[in-house]
Formats: sequence, C-alpha cells, structure tokens
Amino acid sequence: MEIIREIGEVQKKIKEWKDAGESIGFVPTMGYLHRGHGSLIERAARENDRVVVSVFVNPMQFDNCNDLDSYPSDLSGDMDLVTGSGGDLIFSPTVQEIYPRGFNSLVEVENLDNELCGATRPGHFRGVCTVLTKFFLILAPHRVYFGKKDYQQLMVVKRMVADLNIPLEIIGCTTVREESGLAMSSRNARLSEDEKRKALIINQTLKAVKDRVIQGEVEVEKIRRWAIERIEGVGGAVVDYFEIVHPDTLQKITKIEDKAVAATAVFIGKSRLIDNIILGGKDETTDA
Amino acid sequence: MEIIREIGEVQKKIKEWKDAGESIGFVPTMGYLHRGHGSLIERAARENDRVVVSVFVNPMQFDNCNDLDSYPSDLSGDMDLVTGSGGDLIFSPTVQEIYPRGFNSLVEVENLDNELCGATRPGHFRGVCTVLTKFFLILAPHRVYFGKKDYQQLMVVKRMVADLNIPLEIIGCTTVREESGLAMSSRNARLSEDEKRKALIINQTLKAVKDRVIQGEVEVEKIRRWAIERIEGVGGAVVDYFEIVHPDTLQKITKIEDKAVAATAVFIGKSRLIDNIILGGKDETTDA
Repeated sequence: MEIIREIGEVQKKIKEWKDAGESIGFVPTMGYLHRGHGSLIERAARENDRVVVSVFVNPMQFDNCNDLDSYPSDLSGDMDLVTGSGGDLIFSPTVQEIYPRGFNSLVEVENLDNELCGATRPGHFRGVCTVLTKFFLILAPHRVYFGKKDYQQLMVVKRMVADLNIPLEIIGCTTVREESGLAMSSRNARLSEDEKRKALIINQTLKAVKDRVIQGEVEVEKIRRWAIERIEGVGGAVVDYFEIVHPDTLQKITKIEDKAVAATAVFIGKSRLIDNIILGGKDETTDA
Repeated sequence: MEIIREIGEVQKKIKEWKDAGESIGFVPTMGYLHRGHGSLIERAARENDRVVVSVFVNPMQFDNCNDLDSYPSDLSGDMDLVTGSGGDLIFSPTVQEIYPRGFNSLVEVENLDNELCGATRPGHFRGVCTVLTKFFLILAPHRVYFGKKDYQQLMVVKRMVADLNIPLEIIGCTTVREESGLAMSSRNARLSEDEKRKALIINQTLKAVKDRVIQGEVEVEKIRRWAIERIEGVGGAVVDYFEIVHPDTLQKITKIEDKAVAATAVFIGKSRLIDNIILGGKDETTDA
C-alpha cells in the first residue's frame, strides 16, 4: 500500500495506469476509515481496475476549529483498511499542497446548500465542493463513490459535477450500519459506550417516522416535532436539525405527498452525527 | 468551417483529434470577432494541431441586461475570420445547452475580483469563471489563449486554473491595436466616427501616465486624478474607473515603487471600453 503526498506524483501514477488502459475508481475520505468506507472501496474495486482513496481533513469545510482539531486520524489503520478492501493507493496531501499561498478560488452549489447541514454549517458545502473539484481534476477518475449517509453532500456533488461538466460518474452507495442500526461514521469513535447506546435513537426515530408516513401521516411539522422530542427524550442528545425535504431540490416541504427525505443531525455529547431515510419510497435507506 | 452547437458533438470531435495524437488550442470569445481575436487564433494555430474557437455571449457575466441584449453578433463574419486565421471549429452552444434547468453552480476567485471591473461590475467575474470552467472541462484543450487587454480577466483565470488544478495552460497575448492605438474590441463596432476619435484618449492617457512614471512620479492619487481629468476632458468620455494596482494581487497601491498596472474602463457614449498598461516595466503593453 503506497501513500502519495504530492499532486505531481499521484498524477504520474494515474497516468501510468491510464496509459495501460486501466479504469480509475476514487473514494474521497477524511481518514479514520471504517467499514462504511471499506464497502465504498470494495465496490470501487469491483467496478474499476484501480482504486485511489484520498485521506485529507479539509480545513475549508470545517466552520468550527475545535471540530477540525479533534477530527480523529489513524493513517496506519487506514492503510490496512484500504489494502483489505482492495484499494491500490492512498493520496494524502498536506494542507499546503492543496491550498498553497495565494489560493483564492471557490466552487459553490447554490440553493441545494441552504437547508440541512448547509443551514447550520455555513460555508461547509463550499469547502466540500472546492476540495472535491480539485481532487476530481487532479485524479481524473472514471467513477467516484460516496455514501448516502450524507444525502445532501451526494446531491450537491452530483449537481456540481453535472453543472461544471466534470467528466466522471458519481455513484451513491447504501449507508453501512452497525448491527444496532447506527450509521457508520468516523465520529462514532469518539462516542462513549453510553453515548453509543443513546445514538441509536437517531436511526430508530427515522425508521419510526417512515412507519408513521406509511400509516398515513402527511403533516411534516407534526412529524418533525414528534421526532425531535423523541430523540432529545433520551437525554444528552441535542437535535441540530430534523427536516423533511424534497429529494431533489432539498427544499423543505409541508406535506408528504410523494417521495421525500427525512434528514437529521444530532449532537450526542460533543459528536455531531447525521443520518437520513427516504420516505414514500420502498427502501429503508436512502437511494439517491 | 464547422459550427457545432452541442456539447456531446464537440466532445466527440475533440476526442477524434486527441485519439489521433493532436494537440488542442482554445480561444474563448463572445463572437463579433476582430483582428485581436484573429491574432489569438493565429497564435493558437501555430502552437497546436487544432484550434477551437467558442462563440458564446455568456448571460451570467453581464450585470446589465441592456449591455447583454445590445452585444453585437455576426456569426457568418466570425466563420470567415476563424477560417482565415487558421481555426478548425467554432463551438457556439445555446444558453440552454450551457445553463440547463436546475443549473446552480458557480466558480469564483476571491480578492482578485473586488477591484477594477470586479468593483464596478458585481458578479461579472463569477460569470466569467463559471462559464470558462465549463468550457475548459467540456473541451479539455491543451492551451487557452487570452488577450491582455482584459488584464484582470487574465489574472483571475490564471489564478482559477492553478487553484482548481484544471489541466491546461493559460497563455496571455499582447493586445492588438488599431494604428491609432485604440485597443481592438467588439464594442468598437458600436462607436460612431466621432466616438472612435474620442476613444483614442484612453490609450494616449495610459501612455502619458507611463511617461510620467518614467519621469519619476510615484504618487498614485495624483496620477489618477490627472488621468481621469485628461480622459473626461475630451467630452462624452466618462471614466468608470482608473486605477493603479499591484500586477499580481490587483490591489490598489498608493505609491509606484515597483512594477504596477494602470487599468481603466471608460464609457464613450454607451460603449464601455477597457485598456491597461504596465508601469515600471519595459513594455508599453501589459506583459502578464
């Protein structure tokens, strides 16, 4: 398992592979990889000849310095997981390599970024879009793999790639969960056993919301209040947002008349966890 | 001379050329081509196997609808000029092809865009950067040619390409002028004979400013006031801005101690004309 830190060097490697007619899959990550990432890498390895995994904690997408500084890392564990999942290469550049002196550009997707995480984390998606544009153009992969846990991120990235004619395919993959139902996240590592137990309320409530909708409830505000109360009822859980939105525009709706997405971000102690569920569709997990 | 209107079709053509090992030069334009464009196309033809010229009046970069609606066009004249200059193909997409329903993305270069044209035309460079990113990724040329008449545009585009790792080379080319010194512009076509004569004051004043600097003047504010008075003295000329800025950061300076750029935009009647000159360097024209 090779780790490359420089743009020029990773491009040389990818050029070799492409010159040999090989296809390139790419899994962008912030490191501290878990089985969720593993499943993205495995799928990328099935669908491409070579798989590049980036490990880069992008300062531009953090609005909160504490959150950035406390983001967990374990490059040696990451190497094991990438190897075990069939990846070929880790690209882990320094912040200086990605944002050299004088860097002044940004990429943004408007309208899709003002609800959900975009509403409570101003500038977050601008940071995500800017760094992903850079990675997409540096690596020039054929296919890029994202989990559906961050539904909004997936939608924003798909929009950006279509809008800017970036020549690659974005593939959304089913959220991988613990047996308990908790969505896999690097942030789970910071949860105590007690917090981990409390965190189960997130997915449980999303599933309960889906059941209520199946049983005929259509009033979004009623469901929202009920869900927030249910989540915060466990004690130590603070809802950052709980919204039900249109699956494409991500705009808030007031009645569930067709497919919709319930998405939530919840602070369990200091950790901010996100999850979502498709309503009015067939699957329990989102299927973007 | 082929005109292609669809993204998929132009990409197919370029793929054929690239598969045959040919290099691609690109000259982005808003049409109504003149000798200045001709000289960019000629240079692109000398340095590349194939040259694509885009003709697209980009609504996203116009802050003023009248300016957009009255922008001159002459596609048949453009075809003749492209052919005569050694170009291979005109890519002239519809607005719908470039900005389909749901389009929501933007690319922006901060800090370089808040002086000069960026200060008096809010959103202008955001429109320029967004459409150029799209064209660069659609066409994937090896080299792209810009005139130095729009010095700020050249600097903004160079910054954007470096920042976003867009894999191509930006080449700035010397401004082509009428014998009278007037910088070539599609907007010159809208000038009456009287206005054309008055417009000469722009380049004359820039050269006079350069002379004053050579003679030892360093006070920017003194030069600015003198220049604006000199330009507006011809009657019917209204200075939109006249600034002396750092050649890289484009930030205003107060004393000319090293290389600097004097840049101006002047309304002659209804036409807004721009020009610039490098101060403290060797050339009369900018040399970015």
